[in-house]
Amino acid sequence: MGETIDVSEETLGKLRKCGQGTLTTQLFKRGYRQQFLVGLAPLSKDTGSFAGEAFTLRFIPSREDKDWDLGDLRKRGEDNVQWEAVEAIQAGQVLVIDSRNDPRAASAGNMLMTRMMRKGVAAAITDGAFRDGTEISGMAFPAYCRANTASTRPAYHRAVAMQQPIGCADVAVYPGDIIVGDADGVTVIPRHLAKEVADDSYEQELREKFLFTKVDAGASLFGTYPPDAATLAEFETWKAAGNTL
Amino acid sequence: MGETIDVSEETLGKLRKCGQGTLTTQLFKRGYRQQFLVGLAPLSKDTGSFAGEAFTLRFIPSREDKDWDLGDLRKRGEDNVQWEAVEAIQAGQVLVIDSRNDPRAASAGNMLMTRMMRKGVAAAITDGAFRDGTEISGMAFPAYCRANTASTRPAYHRAVAMQQPIGCADVAVYPGDIIVGDADGVTVIPRHLAKEVADDSYEQELREKFLFTKVDAGASLFGTYPPDAATLAEFETWKAAGNTL
Amino acid sequence: MGETIDVSEETLGKLRKCGQGTLTTQLFKRGYRQQFLVGLAPLSKDTGSFAGEAFTLRFIPSREDKDWDLGDLRKRGEDNVQWEAVEAIQAGQVLVIDSRNDPRAASAGNMLMTRMMRKGVAAAITDGAFRDGTEISGMAFPAYCRANTASTRPAYHRAVAMQQPIGCADVAVYPGDIIVGDADGVTVIPRHLAKEVADDSYEQELREKFLFTKVDAGASLFGTYPPDAATLAEFETWKAAGNTL
Amino acid sequence: MGETIDVSEETLGKLRKCGQGTLTTQLFKRGYRQQFLVGLAPLSKDTGSFAGEAFTLRFIPSREDKDWDLGDLRKRGEDNVQWEAVEAIQAGQVLVIDSRNDPRAASAGNMLMTRMMRKGVAAAITDGAFRDGTEISGMAFPAYCRANTASTRPAYHRAVAMQQPIGCADVAVYPGDIIVGDADGVTVIPRHLAKEVADDSYEQELREKFLFTKVDAGASLFGTYPPDAATLAEFETWKAAGNTL
Amino acid sequence: MGETIDVSEETLGKLRKCGQGTLTTQLFKRGYRQQFLVGLAPLSKDTGSFAGEAFTLRFIPSREDKDWDLGDLRKRGEDNVQWEAVEAIQAGQVLVIDSRNDPRAASAGNMLMTRMMRKGVAAAITDGAFRDGTEISGMAFPAYCRANTASTRPAYHRAVAMQQPIGCADVAVYPGDIIVGDADGVTVIPRHLAKEVADDSYEQELREKFLFTKVDAGASLFGTYPPDAATLAEFETWKAAGNTL
Amino acid sequence: MGETIDVSEETLGKLRKCGQGTLTTQLFKRGYRQQFLVGLAPLSKDTGSFAGEAFTLRFIPSREDKDWDLGDLRKRGEDNVQWEAVEAIQAGQVLVIDSRNDPRAASAGNMLMTRMMRKGVAAAITDGAFRDGTEISGMAFPAYCRANTASTRPAYHRAVAMQQPIGCADVAVYPGDIIVGDADGVTVIPRHLAKEVADDSYEQELREKFLFTKVDAGASLFGTYPPDAATLAEFETWKAAGNTL
Repeated sequence: MGETIDVSEETLGKLRKCGQGTLTTQLFKRGYRQQFLVGLAPLSKDTGSFAGEAFTLRFIPSREDKDWDLGDLRKRGEDNVQWEAVEAIQAGQVLVIDSRNDPRAASAGNMLMTRMMRKGVAAAITDGAFRDGTEISGMAFPAYCRANTASTRPAYHRAVAMQQPIGCADVAVYPGDIIVGDADGVTVIPRHLAKEVADDSYEQELREKFLFTKVDAGASLFGTYPPDAATLAEFETWKAAGNTL
Repeated sequence: MGETIDVSEETLGKLRKCGQGTLTTQLFKRGYRQQFLVGLAPLSKDTGSFAGEAFTLRFIPSREDKDWDLGDLRKRGEDNVQWEAVEAIQAGQVLVIDSRNDPRAASAGNMLMTRMMRKGVAAAITDGAFRDGTEISGMAFPAYCRANTASTRPAYHRAVAMQQPIGCADVAVYPGDIIVGDADGVTVIPRHLAKEVADDSYEQELREKFLFTKVDAGASLFGTYPPDAATLAEFETWKAAGNTL
Repeated sequence: MGETIDVSEETLGKLRKCGQGTLTTQLFKRGYRQQFLVGLAPLSKDTGSFAGEAFTLRFIPSREDKDWDLGDLRKRGEDNVQWEAVEAIQAGQVLVIDSRNDPRAASAGNMLMTRMMRKGVAAAITDGAFRDGTEISGMAFPAYCRANTASTRPAYHRAVAMQQPIGCADVAVYPGDIIVGDADGVTVIPRHLAKEVADDSYEQELREKFLFTKVDAGASLFGTYPPDAATLAEFETWKAAGNTL
Repeated sequence: MGETIDVSEETLGKLRKCGQGTLTTQLFKRGYRQQFLVGLAPLSKDTGSFAGEAFTLRFIPSREDKDWDLGDLRKRGEDNVQWEAVEAIQAGQVLVIDSRNDPRAASAGNMLMTRMMRKGVAAAITDGAFRDGTEISGMAFPAYCRANTASTRPAYHRAVAMQQPIGCADVAVYPGDIIVGDADGVTVIPRHLAKEVADDSYEQELREKFLFTKVDAGASLFGTYPPDAATLAEFETWKAAGNTL
Repeated sequence: MGETIDVSEETLGKLRKCGQGTLTTQLFKRGYRQQFLVGLAPLSKDTGSFAGEAFTLRFIPSREDKDWDLGDLRKRGEDNVQWEAVEAIQAGQVLVIDSRNDPRAASAGNMLMTRMMRKGVAAAITDGAFRDGTEISGMAFPAYCRANTASTRPAYHRAVAMQQPIGCADVAVYPGDIIVGDADGVTVIPRHLAKEVADDSYEQELREKFLFTKVDAGASLFGTYPPDAATLAEFETWKAAGNTL
Repeated sequence: MGETIDVSEETLGKLRKCGQGTLTTQLFKRGYRQQFLVGLAPLSKDTGSFAGEAFTLRFIPSREDKDWDLGDLRKRGEDNVQWEAVEAIQAGQVLVIDSRNDPRAASAGNMLMTRMMRKGVAAAITDGAFRDGTEISGMAFPAYCRANTASTRPAYHRAVAMQQPIGCADVAVYPGDIIVGDADGVTVIPRHLAKEVADDSYEQELREKFLFTKVDAGASLFGTYPPDAATLAEFETWKAAGNTL
């Protein structure tokens, strides 16, 4: 499985320094049209950047005979998959929930978020809703969702499996994929591309940092962005002078 | 698992004689709000009734590195799950596909439909689209979908697993659930309820067949539908006279 | 109230002879942008034309404490408003249901349709769904809806009032408005405009019947549709010769 | 009618101390699936909590002959129902507007909000839009909507009745229901359940306040949330020590 | 411009013999994900196949100062672009209208359809609605739309330009692209690909005609569809025997 | 063309002092139902007011043969229309992009925004998405969109023309129309109405500033808003005393 491909901390570190626009552009150059989770936003505008491997959780619609008893949260196993997932996920991983884009009930709330934050989980993402959004937005834990809905999960969702391939916001997510995010949103990087996307994104980001100074100073786009030979030479000089992200 | 609960041919036979309105009413009386697949319609208006157990197939969004090679349909196993599913499903079963309600590419076309029809599969259902709708609508095979879309499956979908619990048109479907349909659409009956729903639905359908004759003759709803004691007695007499569905 | 304005059978007769395109054009000329019920279609393609005054029925979302008992259909009054409405509506009227554009449960089924058909009701319209669509499509009774959904009404709807102003498919409908429909759909005519819209629509329809013969014979649109003076003169001759709709 | 059931200030006070997640969970335990107004958010992130009884206002689509004259706001009665409603609503009540989920025109703006705030109204809610969102977000008055739209109400809405049962964001609201909200959104509590939901929610909230300290300190969910016997005993000791919300 | 690339009648003839599923598969093999017009359907189920080059017409939202006067249809030029387009389009071409996926008013009705049919236009397509759907469905003229809406075009649309690049049902359409359709829907083929797509689609269609006989006779998908070497050899023999589409 | 109508800086100055609610009300009085861009919001809540003439840019869906090469941004002309537009737009103008309401890829990002800001462009608006939302929200440049999406433009959009009439958020926008916005959103004013709308809006805004003091002090709506003769007289006195916006 792809999960056996090693992704180094250096790669994750580079990814954390790159914006989502840069990452999606690098993925697009490799033929990937849409790896950004459209419609999901962080609960807090102060959300910092993160990168980690995906730990997936899959929901299906709830049904009255299986999910209507709120007292079952002490159970282990198949009737309490969400609790099992929150305990199984490891430090540095990112929880990605397939809620079928349905925000009518919460995928999780502040108690589960707190548990994950204390375990060192990197972030939590649903294509549905979270509850307790105000409290979560005050935590140092990146949480992304489509909406803030208080209704309890079993009203519309059953957690049915973890660590399977899923869809999230219409993007395929395989366990072990590298998930990167910041205040602008979240990008899914196929695990086998993590290193090359990180390297090329870092270089692109650095170049755009330089080019931005030109555009901000009034340069025309033509010749500057993208750079012509003269501008590229200037960039190389700037970079050689030790400028970094 | 629920699949070990026996569902007799007699039960399936009763279910085939009942309309979707009757079945959903019986399910509602047991607390199930929505077991009808809203938004899905048969490709042919001449679709007859069917009942059989669910064989599930799960799609996630396709991705350029995994699904972009149309030549892989000779492969076996995880990279060709849809072909495996069509060969694995058995006579009398109903294929239910979770296409995440996305009609932008076809879940299947007439070739796979023909294969299943010839195997004795009872019906095929997707909450996305089928292609070759005109040809399929001429086949003696019930096929339900949200739309008729020609685009090939890997444009938007990857078949990732079979016989897992899924959602279809926002309704939970577990392998082995009993799926019943006719020209009006499809209802999902939790397997453990199949017998009691069949028995009570048959009785309700019979009673309404009688009550219809009264309403059709000009009776007021009050006293007739639902019936008062006098009307009920008339019904019992009518039924004792050997009238059936 | 507007209901006191008389609308003659002659006016209704003219309206039944006019297409929805003509009626909406005449309403547009009077400043009414959208009086057509977008998204609603007849259950049968063979639906003939009808015209009658609106009898309105208003639904709100159902709630578990009020609508979860299917046994209450023998009750009279506020807990069984739909049954009361079907009995209260009179021959020649048109039932218009505000289902909040929500097709997840049926607004009514074939039993209530049959009752209304036998009473001489002109048509039934919902901006949600009907159940038993196949049976209803075989009846000589125009029925319009957004979808065909089997689930029983109280799953999502409570009938809460009759003969109030409502919205239907985003169009205002006041009790007594004139509702006209055919196989192409339904138009709502404010009651006070019924006569003038009928008269002008009849004239427009007659003129277009003539102009169609010209276009069908190969005439350019310019000069013909709309007609110039020469073509108008031809029309007047044609009309004077006794041609009618 | 339910409005005759007394709801004490103590009950309202307890409700104000409870989060929406707790309230919806208590309602779910009583069989109510969705009483949260999905998709509506407060105009200000600093919105405090409130609780009060619903005063309802119902909109239908506007029509060119009735709503196109902006000069009619001096009128009394049926042609100016919104003004009448703002004057009729009393201190402590909550205005709930059924805008048919349509945000294309404003349900109200800062002038009406100011009038209600000065009268002591507790909050205003629409499932459509408000205008003047920036000004309203600076007022000490909770206002919830789906969007901020400047267009004047009669462009799409006519206020047609007050104090009728309505739908708001797909939830039934009866006059007199208890409406509770905070920065996370709004929950509708059927009036006859207000006291028991308040009592049980208060107790749940208190228990979760305690349990949070355990989870925040690194405890596993299993044994803690929900609590086992040992944890419950700890909670009782903590509570007996006088800890409150 | 691409319009200068010749597309022969032989190519068009081949395209007319191929199903949309074949055409979209051939386009997908060349990297085109979605060239099918999702959500558009023919007004008549008896619609035959057609192929021709695109003549485009672009709508924007109407505005009260420009489009509210229905009397301007005698004008020439920029205030009557739709009439100009219907007169400018030539025999064999296909009218493709960008209605911004908005079905709230008709893109055209039976009079314009009749004019185009008599001129020899191959088909008319809108991603909005047509009016007079019942009449059009009886004409020998393929017409595709999202809905059947009577309301007159200026209620929501202004025809602003012809023969510009447009979007239709979220697919790019350039003047001169080859448009192919049948009862299953419509596919857009970039003009420069018309010949190779026609040739390869014809060959694929022929092969599938043969393979269908095998699947229909009970063959497993594996080995047959797609064919293995033995099956391919059988096909070549069958083809050499003179079998054609 | 309308662009030849002069719009003075005094007119623009008045427009900047008026809220969107006032502007849309004045337009509604002239028969314009919806000139507000529903669903678009500024990236920064601190966005100040602006007014300027529209410079339009039109997108269609991208296609793999034309838009899949990110290296073409050095080109001039038809294959790089967006870059041309950013260089062609002049100080004081407002960029309005028709993205077909599709937020799946970014209409532009911070580099183009910076270029425009430095050129003195007044604002940028798309009915799709921007990328780099966090950075843009920190710039002194009003930017309005439906969402914040990182994916690069050619994934879904091709810039195909500038300075044509377009739709933006379902509102017609002609080059030269006057665009006004603030933290509440954006209104489109047909150019020929700019002066009269500015004058009447300024007067309305001033009157409402006065009336607000009455309502804020506890006055009833009736008699105050709208004002009766006595209140109007008070206003005139207040205005005569030199009070201004």
